[in-house]
Amino acid sequence: MAQRNPDRTAPVAGEVLARYLREQATEFLRALRQHREGGAEDSAGPARALRRSARRISGTLHTFRPLLDAEWSDQLRTELAWLSGTLAREHGYAARLDRLLGALHRLSGAAAFPVQAAEARRTAAPKGQLTVGAAKAGALLERQLTLARTRAHSAALQALGSSRFHAVADGVAVLASEVPLRKEAAAHQLTPFAADVEARLNEAVTALPLVRAGHPYNAEALTHGLAPDEAPESQDAPWHQVRLLLRLHRYAQEAIRTPEAQLGTVRLLSAGEALDRHRDAAEAAAAAASAARTPRIAPTTAYALGVLHADQRHEVEAARYAFQRVWRGAGTGTAVGAP
Amino acid sequence: MAQRNPDRTAPVAGEVLARYLREQATEFLRALRQHREGGAEDSAGPARALRRSARRISGTLHTFRPLLDAEWSDQLRTELAWLSGTLAREHGYAARLDRLLGALHRLSGAAAFPVQAAEARRTAAPKGQLTVGAAKAGALLERQLTLARTRAHSAALQALGSSRFHAVADGVAVLASEVPLRKEAAAHQLTPFAADVEARLNEAVTALPLVRAGHPYNAEALTHGLAPDEAPESQDAPWHQVRLLLRLHRYAQEAIRTPEAQLGTVRLLSAGEALDRHRDAAEAAAAAASAARTPRIAPTTAYALGVLHADQRHEVEAARYAFQRVWRGAGTGTAVGAP
Repeated sequence: MAQRNPDRTAPVAGEVLARYLREQATEFLRALRQHREGGAEDSAGPARALRRSARRISGTLHTFRPLLDAEWSDQLRTELAWLSGTLAREHGYAARLDRLLGALHRLSGAAAFPVQAAEARRTAAPKGQLTVGAAKAGALLERQLTLARTRAHSAALQALGSSRFHAVADGVAVLASEVPLRKEAAAHQLTPFAADVEARLNEAVTALPLVRAGHPYNAEALTHGLAPDEAPESQDAPWHQVRLLLRLHRYAQEAIRTPEAQLGTVRLLSAGEALDRHRDAAEAAAAAASAARTPRIAPTTAYALGVLHADQRHEVEAARYAFQRVWRGAGTGTAVGAP
Repeated sequence: MAQRNPDRTAPVAGEVLARYLREQATEFLRALRQHREGGAEDSAGPARALRRSARRISGTLHTFRPLLDAEWSDQLRTELAWLSGTLAREHGYAARLDRLLGALHRLSGAAAFPVQAAEARRTAAPKGQLTVGAAKAGALLERQLTLARTRAHSAALQALGSSRFHAVADGVAVLASEVPLRKEAAAHQLTPFAADVEARLNEAVTALPLVRAGHPYNAEALTHGLAPDEAPESQDAPWHQVRLLLRLHRYAQEAIRTPEAQLGTVRLLSAGEALDRHRDAAEAAAAAASAARTPRIAPTTAYALGVLHADQRHEVEAARYAFQRVWRGAGTGTAVGAP
């Protein structure tokens, strides 16, 4: 991989890499300024922008590690992972609640819940108790996920005020002015490193059960849905791993910015969107199952949570189907923006 | 439609029709004899054969009604419908229980239930309570559907010993010796009547949401799955109707036995199989929902029944997808025998 740059017209590798990292670092610092100026009420946009650039910096430091001061960049990567994880949690709970309430809405018809829960309870015919169940399930999920979200919000605020965060911001500020490249960086090309990531991605995709995923209604995602051993989580893991590698690959393509790299972007975005949906549905299904383990809930609530869990596991299966279509080039991507 | 037979080499319509009805009547009487000789323990085979020929006789009397003594055949048709309905119920409950326990088995992993329910309860970790839920749900369904099946069995035995049944058997015996054709029957062809049935079938299929069914994971079948107004049943009805028309069409093709009629048989069988699966899954989903309305069940049982209900509603959706593929000629039929 350590070959000399044979093409004099191509920009020097270190330059390209440094420019990309500087851009992302600048984005990070701009988002941070907006976050501080904006106050608490419109923090979602800046927080998303912070996470967005943190992920890109972190991914780039990882992919092109041999070109950078290793110790320094490993350290920054760890801290960026902590930061984006902390910031992502609040958004995650909010999105999960939205997804679950939306699904309950679809499952219950237009009328019932969650604010109209009392109404539904009043008008419910004997068989209508299931709609009451949906309303109660919605209220339970709302309580649990709102609590989790509030905690995540506090944790994020605390993190953003911590000295640990200030150290991260300092690190990123260094990146914005002077990327710590190793001396040998100039002698390398970027493409072999990007190709490495792509190879890892392809290998991980090859290991996925894509043939099975290509047969609609294979009922795979709900297999062992009532098993005690967390089986869904274990069958989801390789897909989550591909999601991360796909993102790493996309960031590497952004960094090297060759014309070929631009070509595959829509497909990568669509594939990534399918895997985001896979992750979201899997987590929503787990939240429904977890809510069903709340002590002393009514059977109708538990029934609605069971339906909801299965519904989200089918969303998981649908996302796998969508991914394999995009991957095999059959899907019509509708991606509109890089997450 | 009342045109004179222009082709001297074609067999006379009345003859073809009479031969088919005689064959089916003979089958009916043979199955009846076997049922009486076999005793109670192996009654499933003869009962199935009885229903099979009863459906064919009834369908044929309906399709070719203008060629037959109308009053006599309407009367026999009513009685055959009563008989096959009565005989089908026992089999229906048994099949539904098999389907639901099979699904619970798939959902719970290999171990748990229902005979090993106690075992599962012993070994269950805190999160394993859901498997106990599956075991309890299985036991509840087994209790309810076995009771229903036993009642249906008694009702079937009672029906087969009734004077009402003897009148049906006498009617079929008449058919086996001398089909009561109208005098004008010889002047007609059979194909226009069969074409009428086919036109009704095509019309009913055209009214189905086939485009939507062709998009996998459209989540249609579970829409309103928690609604109070029995919405699933109303969205299923047009599919059930197509199932009946498809059967009527198939029997008409059997009766007229033209080479073209033979050609489409595999496709018709595959399409019918998909709609049988649609009906079975819809009824199983309803049975799971109904079991969830049992008073004083544990939340874990209710949760498992909710997952099971959603699973079967997805089977409903999968069957619709399979039907539209077969109908559009894309499906690879695996039908192995006429039900």
